[in-house]
Amino acid sequence: MTNKYSDTYHIPYYDCDMEGRLKVPTLVKMMIRTSGNQSSHYGMTTEVVATYGLSWVITQHDVRINRLPRGNETIKITTQAEKYNKFFCYRKFWAHDENGEEIATMESTFALMDIKERKIKAVPDEIIAPFQSEKIKRIKRSEKIPDRGENADKKDIQITYWHIDENKHVNNAVYVEWMMDCLPLDFLVNHVPKRLLIKYNKEVRYEEQIIAVSKTEDNVTSCAIQSEDELFSEGFIEWN
Amino acid sequence: MTNKYSDTYHIPYYDCDMEGRLKVPTLVKMMIRTSGNQSSHYGMTTEVVATYGLSWVITQHDVRINRLPRGNETIKITTQAEKYNKFFCYRKFWAHDENGEEIATMESTFALMDIKERKIKAVPDEIIAPFQSEKIKRIKRSEKIPDRGENADKKDIQITYWHIDENKHVNNAVYVEWMMDCLPLDFLVNHVPKRLLIKYNKEVRYEEQIIAVSKTEDNVTSCAIQSEDELFSEGFIEWN
Repeated sequence: MTNKYSDTYHIPYYDCDMEGRLKVPTLVKMMIRTSGNQSSHYGMTTEVVATYGLSWVITQHDVRINRLPRGNETIKITTQAEKYNKFFCYRKFWAHDENGEEIATMESTFALMDIKERKIKAVPDEIIAPFQSEKIKRIKRSEKIPDRGENADKKDIQITYWHIDENKHVNNAVYVEWMMDCLPLDFLVNHVPKRLLIKYNKEVRYEEQIIAVSKTEDNVTSCAIQSEDELFSEGFIEWN
Repeated sequence: MTNKYSDTYHIPYYDCDMEGRLKVPTLVKMMIRTSGNQSSHYGMTTEVVATYGLSWVITQHDVRINRLPRGNETIKITTQAEKYNKFFCYRKFWAHDENGEEIATMESTFALMDIKERKIKAVPDEIIAPFQSEKIKRIKRSEKIPDRGENADKKDIQITYWHIDENKHVNNAVYVEWMMDCLPLDFLVNHVPKRLLIKYNKEVRYEEQIIAVSKTEDNVTSCAIQSEDELFSEGFIEWN
């Protein structure tokens, strides 16, 4: 039986948007924080993983939102390192409110990168053992991102000091900020993502010149974070 | 005796910068959150203040930093509504670490704005009564911001959805982000503010076209947030 782990969080007003709803990027950060806490709980910290010459990287987030909690609410986040195959680890997250209602879930794919070679390596069983994940053969099929076509919107992205995390690259949750910020203010005030899928292809560093290319059609926004010649990240948002 | 109020906060990794230190703007947010909690504690919430047709505005923050705490530390923030005169309320904040060391302080000036007229009004004694602030005649003298001169650096600022708070304008802590972000990455990696003073003249709204004008000399950065014809905010940072 795969081990589950939970933490509770009180939501500060300053992590809420202008409508008083928890910022979606912060929801993602809280979930990732919970998986970090689970890893520490089992003694499988970043430092221990580094003794294998390896470091975790995120290759995909798939977030589904029923309701965004508001400032001063307390939410419980539960996580489980469900399954893994030779190269990928599949982790699930659930967020529940004080009434026990499931307000959001996330399915994320992690991989292990060789710190020196900067290449994905096979997952050593010892690193996964404490989580009691199920080993599987199958690789989850990658979902198609809708085409943005010829008339996509383009927006320059200003990378700031605040986007960079301890891994010296743009934090994975910042891409959620950028993808949602493709939309105009009055759209974002009136819409909440129902589903948000992001694929991470390549890390973005501070000095990169990047743009967000997006297209919104039938309540779905398709968005790419790219430079002139490279695709860093791609995803879609289904809106409520 | 003026009432003090304290709260403790656990610092999430995601509120830390690339060096693992608490982001200065988040320190300011945590302090303001504590004063909001004190107000709620005494039943003097935003909603109650609004029954007077008034709303709190911040006119100045003066932050002094001995040490920035790191992710997973717990800090205690204490606040006290020290003094007030006809138009201004002076509030003090202290941040202490788990060893009881004072790691930072902030002195902030608040005023009350008439919600309809958008003008500063005299402070009604009833609003201040629960805090037991001392009433004074004196108005604190405003500190001079160093001149930026002719050869100042100019940087376009991209206002995003994430900067706007429930008051429908850029949150006061975002100006701290912008002022520090005037400096290049390698400077920010190697320097921590010792003191940061920000004056707020006029609220910034989403549609504003603004720039940061800055000059760094002798370990002091002077910075203005302005449009072509308006000065929204001005301040300085002394660096360690």
